[in-house]
Amino acid sequence: MNRIISGATILHDLESLARFSVPTSKGGVTRLPWTYEDEQVVLLLTDTLTALGLQVSRDTANNLWAVWDVDADRSIVIGSHRDSVPNGGRFDGALGVIGAMRVIQQLKADQYRPRHNIELVAWNDEEGARFGTTLFGSRIYSGATQVTQFSDKIDRQGTSLAEAALQAGYSVEKMEATNHLSRMAAYLELHIEQGPILERNHCHIGVVSGINVQFRERFTMRGIRVHAAYSGADRADPIFATAEVWHNLMTTIHQANHGYPYPRIAATVGQVDVHSHLINAVPPDIIWTLDLRSDDASLAQEMLEMVHGNVERIAQRAGFNAEITSVDDHTVLAGTTDSSQPIAFDPVLQSIVSDAARDGGYSFQHMASWAGHDAMALAPRVPTAMIFVPSYKGLSHTPEEWTDPMDLERGVDVLLRSVIKADTLP
Amino acid sequence: MNRIISGATILHDLESLARFSVPTSKGGVTRLPWTYEDEQVVLLLTDTLTALGLQVSRDTANNLWAVWDVDADRSIVIGSHRDSVPNGGRFDGALGVIGAMRVIQQLKADQYRPRHNIELVAWNDEEGARFGTTLFGSRIYSGATQVTQFSDKIDRQGTSLAEAALQAGYSVEKMEATNHLSRMAAYLELHIEQGPILERNHCHIGVVSGINVQFRERFTMRGIRVHAAYSGADRADPIFATAEVWHNLMTTIHQANHGYPYPRIAATVGQVDVHSHLINAVPPDIIWTLDLRSDDASLAQEMLEMVHGNVERIAQRAGFNAEITSVDDHTVLAGTTDSSQPIAFDPVLQSIVSDAARDGGYSFQHMASWAGHDAMALAPRVPTAMIFVPSYKGLSHTPEEWTDPMDLERGVDVLLRSVIKADTLP
Repeated sequence: MNRIISGATILHDLESLARFSVPTSKGGVTRLPWTYEDEQVVLLLTDTLTALGLQVSRDTANNLWAVWDVDADRSIVIGSHRDSVPNGGRFDGALGVIGAMRVIQQLKADQYRPRHNIELVAWNDEEGARFGTTLFGSRIYSGATQVTQFSDKIDRQGTSLAEAALQAGYSVEKMEATNHLSRMAAYLELHIEQGPILERNHCHIGVVSGINVQFRERFTMRGIRVHAAYSGADRADPIFATAEVWHNLMTTIHQANHGYPYPRIAATVGQVDVHSHLINAVPPDIIWTLDLRSDDASLAQEMLEMVHGNVERIAQRAGFNAEITSVDDHTVLAGTTDSSQPIAFDPVLQSIVSDAARDGGYSFQHMASWAGHDAMALAPRVPTAMIFVPSYKGLSHTPEEWTDPMDLERGVDVLLRSVIKADTLP
Repeated sequence: MNRIISGATILHDLESLARFSVPTSKGGVTRLPWTYEDEQVVLLLTDTLTALGLQVSRDTANNLWAVWDVDADRSIVIGSHRDSVPNGGRFDGALGVIGAMRVIQQLKADQYRPRHNIELVAWNDEEGARFGTTLFGSRIYSGATQVTQFSDKIDRQGTSLAEAALQAGYSVEKMEATNHLSRMAAYLELHIEQGPILERNHCHIGVVSGINVQFRERFTMRGIRVHAAYSGADRADPIFATAEVWHNLMTTIHQANHGYPYPRIAATVGQVDVHSHLINAVPPDIIWTLDLRSDDASLAQEMLEMVHGNVERIAQRAGFNAEITSVDDHTVLAGTTDSSQPIAFDPVLQSIVSDAARDGGYSFQHMASWAGHDAMALAPRVPTAMIFVPSYKGLSHTPEEWTDPMDLERGVDVLLRSVIKADTLP
């Protein structure tokens, strides 16, 4: 048996893909959607996949597809996304694409005869780092979201999504959901964990049960600029007011997780914008975002209500306005309506993944995903599962992102074994 | 007696000066140093002051001087600064310049015969809002600071101070301290309080004892960017770490001021920069500035050490680096060396101001200034005092800055009376 899947090969593939990046001094990968770098990586993948004998094409949303067509009615789809955040890592997304490619190559080398068509997908714009269009490609393709919902999107340079797409040869007017989603017998996505759990447990494989709830909101605390010389205790100081909100939140999150083997809830303040650059004046406003994640929707909802209560109370006491606006939560990303539930993956496919890990002799554990993935947009419509491999120190979206080559090999091997098992499904 | 000094006149003068501004939709005054707006306001003042029979000139640091030369050996100098912060108010600085002009006009109309020369000064760049060169004009002129200390200054557009000065016709190489500072018998500056104390006490005039100590530092909390999906409690989260520092500081400041009729210490976080725009990742770093002010240097020092201790402890616990760098404190601005003392004003001139207020029939109180002023750079070298008038709600550096016309009139009248009294000094 010709052994194509090896840690060294996968790592080499990832390094090759990482070169398609805006060059930066910081050493990370910057491959945003609708850019020169993205187009170049698509051309490379097209060449490689065509050489494997696959039929390569792109859909209306610029997702890349490569089909091993055995004239079956239904398909097993494997892949992940091809974009990165600015100055991100080499593994996030890329591993699922590279892994799928090497799985198909291995199956072909082994002269495997699939009962389903095997399709590789490299989703366009999962991160949403340029236009705030998280899971763009998978949401459009799956019908989770209509493209018209993105019509007002503009990047930091003032380029609209429509203009950027047009420059890449795509028309937003023509973007639409596929009309043959029902052909997908299974969608399987291999990804790094982006958290510390597998590494800490010395566990090889995560069998992912679904995607945690994600609540996201933007807070504007707007006061009046006063000089640092204003010493009165009645200063409407939005910075110290925000500090109190953050500090209360941090304390409450800590308490909620205390005594549990794994965290139940995570809170992130990601964007912080202060529209003043004077060292000697209280800034008139601060805008910040909160991202709350949990496998327990009611806990997350409770925490969000606590933050709302705190913000309103503190703003009122300090004498200024607070505005709260909602940003896309997990149901928006998945195109579902019930925010009280995580996005659950298919039980049969989860069993297939755990069986595959057991067959390979790898340790595995069932776990929820704290991150959103393209699989979210598929799961409500198509049998879906994900395979996680450990992330060094849980890091991702940073040049320090790393997964040991042996873990890469185990992950791709579990994907291979899962495809073969899924191929026995109707 | 021809009554020139009236609230309506002063307010009208201030409105006229406020028109020399970059136009903004926000309604404030934006008159930065070395700009078209500044040059235009200098030309207006030059015309007006020349018409009053004064000898108008500019020194090497682009401070504007207008001298009523009676061929005396020594001078009484009155004035303030002519620049504003971006989107600032109409009173800060401008009142001291306009007030000085109307005082000289009134003295001339009254056919007053001064024993000293009377000089008006309109300092260049007090705010430091463009180049971080706080009290630029007065520090250079008084010799508190050598201009070489500003040689690396660059504005947000990338223009260096040297280039900006050259475009206005000035050479930084030629900027130097005056060699006849000893001619100044007194420096008197009228200014708005920029705090709420006078207004709250229904008091007309503040007799300023000196400038509070000001400690300023810049803090960099630098972690590693991790994805919002990283739920571990060991996240090196510089935002929540900073929230803890700010919250502790706010609580301690509150305790230090509790039970006192006036605040003893004020803390301001003015600049906050977060170098990330991802909603779904912990930012890798946050840079913020702290401005601590007090009339009690040891209290301020104690508070600063508490913040240092907190920052180091929290950063160590969270597993990231914290850097602390000092920004110009009150001794740097004043060109002195002992940071354990406020910058004290001249006792004789303070008595003159309180006598002037009493003579005018105005209520007055002795008070320290929570804000820095050009008077800081003069006080260690020349007999110096300041006169404060109330600020509406204590606001400044904002379009909402306001002082009642009757308070304007009282303040300028106290300046007039103080000049006449100081004129009896040797």
